[in-house]
Amino acid sequence: VPVITLLTDYGTRDSYVGELRGTLLARVPDAVLADITHEVPPGDLPAAAYVLARSWRSFPAGTIHLTVVDPGVGGARAALALESLGHFFVGPDNGVFTPVLEAAGEVIELTVPPAASATFHGRDVFAPAAAALCSGRPLSSLGPVLRAPAIRLPPPRLRPEGGGTTGEVIYVDRFGTLITNLGPALGNEIEIAGLRLQLSRTFGDVPPGEPLAFVGSGGTIEIAVRDGSAAELLGLGRGAAVRAERPR
Amino acid sequence: VPVITLLTDYGTRDSYVGELRGTLLARVPDAVLADITHEVPPGDLPAAAYVLARSWRSFPAGTIHLTVVDPGVGGARAALALESLGHFFVGPDNGVFTPVLEAAGEVIELTVPPAASATFHGRDVFAPAAAALCSGRPLSSLGPVLRAPAIRLPPPRLRPEGGGTTGEVIYVDRFGTLITNLGPALGNEIEIAGLRLQLSRTFGDVPPGEPLAFVGSGGTIEIAVRDGSAAELLGLGRGAAVRAERPR
Amino acid sequence: VPVITLLTDYGTRDSYVGELRGTLLARVPDAVLADITHEVPPGDLPAAAYVLARSWRSFPAGTIHLTVVDPGVGGARAALALESLGHFFVGPDNGVFTPVLEAAGEVIELTVPPAASATFHGRDVFAPAAAALCSGRPLSSLGPVLRAPAIRLPPPRLRPEGGGTTGEVIYVDRFGTLITNLGPALGNEIEIAGLRLQLSRTFGDVPPGEPLAFVGSGGTIEIAVRDGSAAELLGLGRGAAVRAERPR
Repeated sequence: VPVITLLTDYGTRDSYVGELRGTLLARVPDAVLADITHEVPPGDLPAAAYVLARSWRSFPAGTIHLTVVDPGVGGARAALALESLGHFFVGPDNGVFTPVLEAAGEVIELTVPPAASATFHGRDVFAPAAAALCSGRPLSSLGPVLRAPAIRLPPPRLRPEGGGTTGEVIYVDRFGTLITNLGPALGNEIEIAGLRLQLSRTFGDVPPGEPLAFVGSGGTIEIAVRDGSAAELLGLGRGAAVRAERPR
Repeated sequence: VPVITLLTDYGTRDSYVGELRGTLLARVPDAVLADITHEVPPGDLPAAAYVLARSWRSFPAGTIHLTVVDPGVGGARAALALESLGHFFVGPDNGVFTPVLEAAGEVIELTVPPAASATFHGRDVFAPAAAALCSGRPLSSLGPVLRAPAIRLPPPRLRPEGGGTTGEVIYVDRFGTLITNLGPALGNEIEIAGLRLQLSRTFGDVPPGEPLAFVGSGGTIEIAVRDGSAAELLGLGRGAAVRAERPR
Repeated sequence: VPVITLLTDYGTRDSYVGELRGTLLARVPDAVLADITHEVPPGDLPAAAYVLARSWRSFPAGTIHLTVVDPGVGGARAALALESLGHFFVGPDNGVFTPVLEAAGEVIELTVPPAASATFHGRDVFAPAAAALCSGRPLSSLGPVLRAPAIRLPPPRLRPEGGGTTGEVIYVDRFGTLITNLGPALGNEIEIAGLRLQLSRTFGDVPPGEPLAFVGSGGTIEIAVRDGSAAELLGLGRGAAVRAERPR
């Protein structure tokens, strides 16, 4: 039985995640449920898309990624199920699947049952669809092909500038690490908030309390503070400009 | 093997939930454990009862709900195991099972082993009982029938008033949504904190920052703020009066 | 298939725990994953060691404890896998395994693959080793025997003083309970912050808001406040002195 991952902004203190798990297990008693996170900031689609982009590949082929960050629940946005690179993705059509749409095969528009709550499609639309896929039902049986192209989030800025490349902070993790969209090939001299940093390898390369830039575990350049928070020290967050260049 | 759900106020940062999981898996290695939440505010029985009421039905028949919010641990309160509507419930006799007592069959008083810690019945009394049920032991083998009726929480107020019905906020979720005990049949004109709201269908029906009333996914009327917190905007919490009436 | 527990300081809001779970399930699809916690304060080795000490024994023999609190990731510290008392432990050589080193058999130094991220050994070194053990690979196949003794945290103070014994607070839980290293045999008169407390049995033995000392579920003396926080009321934290003596 394939794994079903859960990625939501429901938080973990209410009944919502329990209702998701119950709905899945009631339909597929031997489903393997694996939380990615339920702590996406409410409605934060770029954060959800980043966390999904980072984590889906770690799971085995055939995994079903139930991804419900859904500020437009009950409105006009479509409900989707799609296959991309051997994994399945189920959730709203609001850009959360941007990282996997390029390679996606057919994108299916899920039929919303008339009895579905207008505010909890996670339980009433998306979990049943994920359970159906988990039980082996084919994707195409879940609804018609989506007619319009699925929605994508605008790509973060990435442009050549003064002999280097300017990108931006695309995610801030719980340690206050600033994760950028700059690939390591763009240069090993990093400029952020007036600070110039040479690429380090890991935290221990700088003294405690000092900032460093390094190639993060997601494959792009990150700015951190050893035993501290770069977001706090530099007063920066998502969208902040970062520049990489090759030293002269 | 049946699912065992976990609902506690232990939080997730200490060893307590790990000790619960270990105790269960040591006794039933193939048990399927499903968290409902561990973030019930410490000792908050109405919140625990509400979250249980919302989530237990989503799980498959035969599920064992290990529910440990237990401010009186080690004191005189009884330890319970019971069956209701095809599900099992294990936890303290303090009102947390109010939502399922009406339909309950026999209620068993668990025998507390002499070696049980006086402050961690979750690990030493309730988890072993849940594991026993999960292994197929009959309910009646876990102890004698409880002699007194199990404790119930006082029902929230719900009374006719001025041609409408006054109820109250019974739960505030992590989004600041005010969940009431008013059923949708009681009227579609909602009054709360001097505010009059017509029932909407979903968040998108009002502009961002505006309050709305709607029939929530738990089946009762809720008051929310689109992309915001009704609890904050209105300065209200559990117990706040809410009125529903049919428009004249 | 043995259980794999997860104990980290990664938090639950980013992709990191999802990447761990995916890495494990991609290699051992039927692995049973059990969170202990992901909320260890970042880099707090004594807290991680305490939580591990409390919880590992609850799990069945053969369990693999993936324990990644790793402030020195990518630096000179070794990566370990070891067996102790019938359980396996995988994580960094920084003292986090202090509670189980005394009884450990051979301690293996994991080989770090050249492609491993310098900042995410949890995913690239420790999870693959845990998965290998879970698949039945022998410990000794994971690398050479560690040459130096594994690192241990300094033991908390525990010394006779004035007819009693002075110990210290070694952990503060989410309820603000002060957990000490004083065993119950050291005496039932407890002194902390100028306060003298007789050992109680459980919270109900004192009125709400009052402090009490009792033998906690971890087997040592704890100081709590009924329906409150001892850490807040007494203004104390880890390292605070606590004295036990037998009454005269």
